[in-house]
Amino acid sequence: MIEVNSFALGGWHAPGAGASLIYSAIHGREIARAGGAALDFQDMLDHAKSVGGPALRKLTFHDRAKMLKALAQYLGERKQALYDLSFDTGATQKDHLIDIDGGIGTLFVFASKGRRELPDAHVYLDGPPELLSRSGTFQGQHIATPLQGVAVHINAYNFPVWGMLEKLAPTFLAGVPAIVKPATASCYVTEACVRMMLESGLLPDGALQLVCGRTGDLLDRLDGQDVVSFTGSAATATMLRATPSIAQNSVRFIAEQDSLNGAVLGPDATPDALEFDIFIKEAVREITAKAGQKCTGMRRLLIPENLIDPAREALVAKLATITIGDPRHEDTRMGALISADQKQDVLAKISKLESEAERVFGDLTTMDLLGKDTAPDAFVPPILFQCNNPDAAVEAHRTEAFGPVATLMPYRDIEHASHLLNKGGGSLVASLFTHDVGTAKAMVMSSGAFHGRLYINNRDSAKEATGHGSPLPHMVHGGPGRAGGGEEMGGIRGVMHYMQRTAIQGSPQMLSAIGETWIPGAPEISHDAHPFTRTFHELDLGETFNSDSRKVTLEDIEHFAHFTGDTFYAHMDEEAAKANPFFPGRVAHGYLLLSFAAGLFVQPDPGPVLANTGLDNLRFMKPVQAGDAIKVRLTVKRKTLRNDEYGEVRWHVTLTNQDDDTVAEYELLTMNAV
Amino acid sequence: MIEVNSFALGGWHAPGAGASLIYSAIHGREIARAGGAALDFQDMLDHAKSVGGPALRKLTFHDRAKMLKALAQYLGERKQALYDLSFDTGATQKDHLIDIDGGIGTLFVFASKGRRELPDAHVYLDGPPELLSRSGTFQGQHIATPLQGVAVHINAYNFPVWGMLEKLAPTFLAGVPAIVKPATASCYVTEACVRMMLESGLLPDGALQLVCGRTGDLLDRLDGQDVVSFTGSAATATMLRATPSIAQNSVRFIAEQDSLNGAVLGPDATPDALEFDIFIKEAVREITAKAGQKCTGMRRLLIPENLIDPAREALVAKLATITIGDPRHEDTRMGALISADQKQDVLAKISKLESEAERVFGDLTTMDLLGKDTAPDAFVPPILFQCNNPDAAVEAHRTEAFGPVATLMPYRDIEHASHLLNKGGGSLVASLFTHDVGTAKAMVMSSGAFHGRLYINNRDSAKEATGHGSPLPHMVHGGPGRAGGGEEMGGIRGVMHYMQRTAIQGSPQMLSAIGETWIPGAPEISHDAHPFTRTFHELDLGETFNSDSRKVTLEDIEHFAHFTGDTFYAHMDEEAAKANPFFPGRVAHGYLLLSFAAGLFVQPDPGPVLANTGLDNLRFMKPVQAGDAIKVRLTVKRKTLRNDEYGEVRWHVTLTNQDDDTVAEYELLTMNAV
Repeated sequence: MIEVNSFALGGWHAPGAGASLIYSAIHGREIARAGGAALDFQDMLDHAKSVGGPALRKLTFHDRAKMLKALAQYLGERKQALYDLSFDTGATQKDHLIDIDGGIGTLFVFASKGRRELPDAHVYLDGPPELLSRSGTFQGQHIATPLQGVAVHINAYNFPVWGMLEKLAPTFLAGVPAIVKPATASCYVTEACVRMMLESGLLPDGALQLVCGRTGDLLDRLDGQDVVSFTGSAATATMLRATPSIAQNSVRFIAEQDSLNGAVLGPDATPDALEFDIFIKEAVREITAKAGQKCTGMRRLLIPENLIDPAREALVAKLATITIGDPRHEDTRMGALISADQKQDVLAKISKLESEAERVFGDLTTMDLLGKDTAPDAFVPPILFQCNNPDAAVEAHRTEAFGPVATLMPYRDIEHASHLLNKGGGSLVASLFTHDVGTAKAMVMSSGAFHGRLYINNRDSAKEATGHGSPLPHMVHGGPGRAGGGEEMGGIRGVMHYMQRTAIQGSPQMLSAIGETWIPGAPEISHDAHPFTRTFHELDLGETFNSDSRKVTLEDIEHFAHFTGDTFYAHMDEEAAKANPFFPGRVAHGYLLLSFAAGLFVQPDPGPVLANTGLDNLRFMKPVQAGDAIKVRLTVKRKTLRNDEYGEVRWHVTLTNQDDDTVAEYELLTMNAV
Repeated sequence: MIEVNSFALGGWHAPGAGASLIYSAIHGREIARAGGAALDFQDMLDHAKSVGGPALRKLTFHDRAKMLKALAQYLGERKQALYDLSFDTGATQKDHLIDIDGGIGTLFVFASKGRRELPDAHVYLDGPPELLSRSGTFQGQHIATPLQGVAVHINAYNFPVWGMLEKLAPTFLAGVPAIVKPATASCYVTEACVRMMLESGLLPDGALQLVCGRTGDLLDRLDGQDVVSFTGSAATATMLRATPSIAQNSVRFIAEQDSLNGAVLGPDATPDALEFDIFIKEAVREITAKAGQKCTGMRRLLIPENLIDPAREALVAKLATITIGDPRHEDTRMGALISADQKQDVLAKISKLESEAERVFGDLTTMDLLGKDTAPDAFVPPILFQCNNPDAAVEAHRTEAFGPVATLMPYRDIEHASHLLNKGGGSLVASLFTHDVGTAKAMVMSSGAFHGRLYINNRDSAKEATGHGSPLPHMVHGGPGRAGGGEEMGGIRGVMHYMQRTAIQGSPQMLSAIGETWIPGAPEISHDAHPFTRTFHELDLGETFNSDSRKVTLEDIEHFAHFTGDTFYAHMDEEAAKANPFFPGRVAHGYLLLSFAAGLFVQPDPGPVLANTGLDNLRFMKPVQAGDAIKVRLTVKRKTLRNDEYGEVRWHVTLTNQDDDTVAEYELLTMNAV
């Protein structure tokens, strides 16, 4: 019997009076107990806010990204222990890969995105500066800083590891402490994973606390700096949202609820097309993975009416091969639901579906279970319905049987398919199996707004496609309406859920200092030494180099044209150039100007600048003609340390002519030794 | 007596039984009646969804942006009529500039941003593609499409024009129809503006409907494709959020509530500093503009404790000069509150504030009103409180007297000031008057997460600063916690509130077609003709040009170095180059490669390509040495029509060497004749 503890204020708390018993999904006997610990939720919140938050906020985004990577590595080395525990939730080894490896992978992706897409700083710049005044002395910049509250994560039972880590990764990356509340039925797996994370010593004190059991008055105590991220049923979400403090304090409430996800077989995906087989294979996988206990699972299979018979036959043939039983048994293809209670819930939903759809596969009365020590209480075989009048159906579009259950529906054309999809009232994901671009475009326009994700698969992508049911850390997960209206992950978008966006307005100097990014108009700093002779760490933001000027001659233009082969008429032919709406006559090549600019600013000797690695946002603003003289100004705009040896310097570059008119502007990237 | 109509299903509906009377703020007599029209809200929603939405969604973002610009011009020509009506709300001509000109200006900014920052298409791409697979056959792209529901805008009385237009601009730009519900007290101004917009003929049928009077069961009928955008009191917001359908259907609910905005005089802003005067002037303007009826108004004035006496004295001296009365009178500096009811509300709040703060300016018993036909029922003079123990105060941080009322509070240091600011529980805006960068940075870190906007003013920006109290269309407006947790405007961010973000996953071909933007891996199209000979409209997405190859010689490198002056050692000195961690020996200049690439792809004769206007996202990926041969591939990535004569073509450019390794990648911009 596992005693599932909670973790609060730096200590573990054993189950107490009123603890719940947890039963194995396989054999039905008690395996753990959880809940009833005497936790003071206000103390937990205070601890997170006063200890965890400040410690996390001291770190830069890159520090926190490195922490996530180290956590991922630490868990990766210990995942066998989590596999071993997880079988009792009814999950197979393949299911573990989704939950445990998937969770660790999510940490890795956020670690990597944090390093690449966030600055090594405390403030994230959301978009470019906004010019709010004529001469630029007053500008705007959106920034994001960590919320100073606590993230309360209320997770579903189906993914005890991934469900926690996909929320913790963006939360920690944002710099916000978390209180995790797993669903009781599988909380022993979550608790084991939390123990590992805490034992790693990688997390600051107060960053992570765990509530196994009831949350009591926790939500009543939240304020506008806190976030609730909920995954579970629509009914529970609606109840939690009604907590008075949530509305009164505008507490962010991210909900990811059940959803009647649909999968559409394209009109072109006839049985002889590759897409037909891709669909059948993927549908069977979606119905059976995690025994159908996936919020993203395919619930409604929309089939062109002329293909419904072959589609059903192919599905039935494949579903008939699915072996069920103890997930530890090597021949088992599908495990159990989490509990006998969950089976009862699914059976009740099946009854509802049966009122308007015909069961075309699945026998609830007899079941062969693989493995010696199994009880049938939590096992449900794959069940396939066919609903021939989906326009009139109600339950088929709103009743989610959270198990290996799906319903076939015929549709007439892609508009009809979209209409049926939309009857779900908003979903986490819809999918489309087609090789026809027009079909996909039509569905995006008619149905895109109803789904958080739209998964399109065909012969071109099938080999590498990650699956209808798999949320990925790079892409948003969540959906409108019935699906809860929330969003998680989606890379840095998910980090923003735990940060406050603030519009900063002020002088360029103020904005530059706050955002650690020089913007035009802010003071320029001059040193005697050429900035290319100064190391990454020596360089100051705003440090500026002003070059000498160089006259551009007609000979230069002619010479460059013949040397490079770029004999575009605007450089070569006065009459033709004059006829061009943008040019007053023959003009210098843009690339000639860039090249001369480099000649004007480069410092030829070996020094801290190791390489020019790139160039961004180049705009040619005014033509340069023979006789004009250009000069260049370079200013350090931003510095990003890449490793112990060097860092990237982003330079703001302005090319001006003899009248000080700007002829070109761009950002230059160099790699500089520290 | 103005009969204020509602507009539903294409027709005007006069007030009916149970209409409310509306009184002049100046003289207190009845001037209008509104409400009680027999409106069927389900019909209105259906009309918007079935007629207005489809018509708006047929337009591209650019079409809709042009519509906003035309609307702005149309209203601009008729604004005198709105000024004339608005005086009776108690507003002065200066206040009209905020409301009416401010509203029209907001339309212009969204029109301009729509043209510049959104595509001339139906789908908005949110971020770059995400590579989700090793060989790139399966990728991701976030897109946004218009919600297929209705935007219900519930507006406050204080800005009958701006309050409507700042919500309509992003809504229409997104492609979503709206139902506008103005506050009754000033709805006659809103109705007049709606009449103008409808008379302009610029809006499609069903795009705009107006409810003057009660909303009845309108909110009960909303679903997950609808959006409520509410501006008003926290109490009303909390009540509306509790509508069961809102939570059950995850209806987006954007709230912008009252907020205890603070303004901080920096520790450096002593009376001899320019910032002191800037603060005094701006505080008086904020207290008195719109007679203090601004959700962004300064309610709490945080002053270094050693400066509280001079600050109070300066404020009092300036407030004493504020003349009050009929806003049509030329000497009037401040008008009336909207109504006698509102005055009673403010007086009640003043009593609360008086329980913990001392009134240091403002006499409620006697008032001199300018103008002959005035009644004192809705006039309140400027009132200034001083609260000497702001740490113990409760009301001062939570009671918003929505009139010309502010409270001075002393603070010790910037951490203390932030702490006091944060006691407001989240605000729309905080401001800081300082010339010290360190002070500003400290406040951003300690208090930024509590504010939707942070306005910093000083001697550098004062001349062009737009004011603590002025939300701008470029910047987000809204704030966490007490301020409602919502966001409006902020440029395209505000448009996204009316669109659904969807994560599209599929093959590069699918993503390219859906996003109308070619991405690597999607099919490349070849024509016999060089793409530079084909017009903007002739060019296909994915159309590709493959150049011949050109060998780069040591002579080329030497020659280019001496010609341009770029004699960086990595190009000139084999030994030194070898010591560089990025280079195998002497390498070609990046700009030499770009220039040769242009020579390889350019088509020299006059043709549709008019100019190379810019270059983005250039990355040098592999060094090129003497003896290597480079070739270039250009593919049409995206097309954006700019006017009747030409459009911008974005080309994806890849430079490869003789081994087909990519040596550089970038995007090239050309302007092409149609």
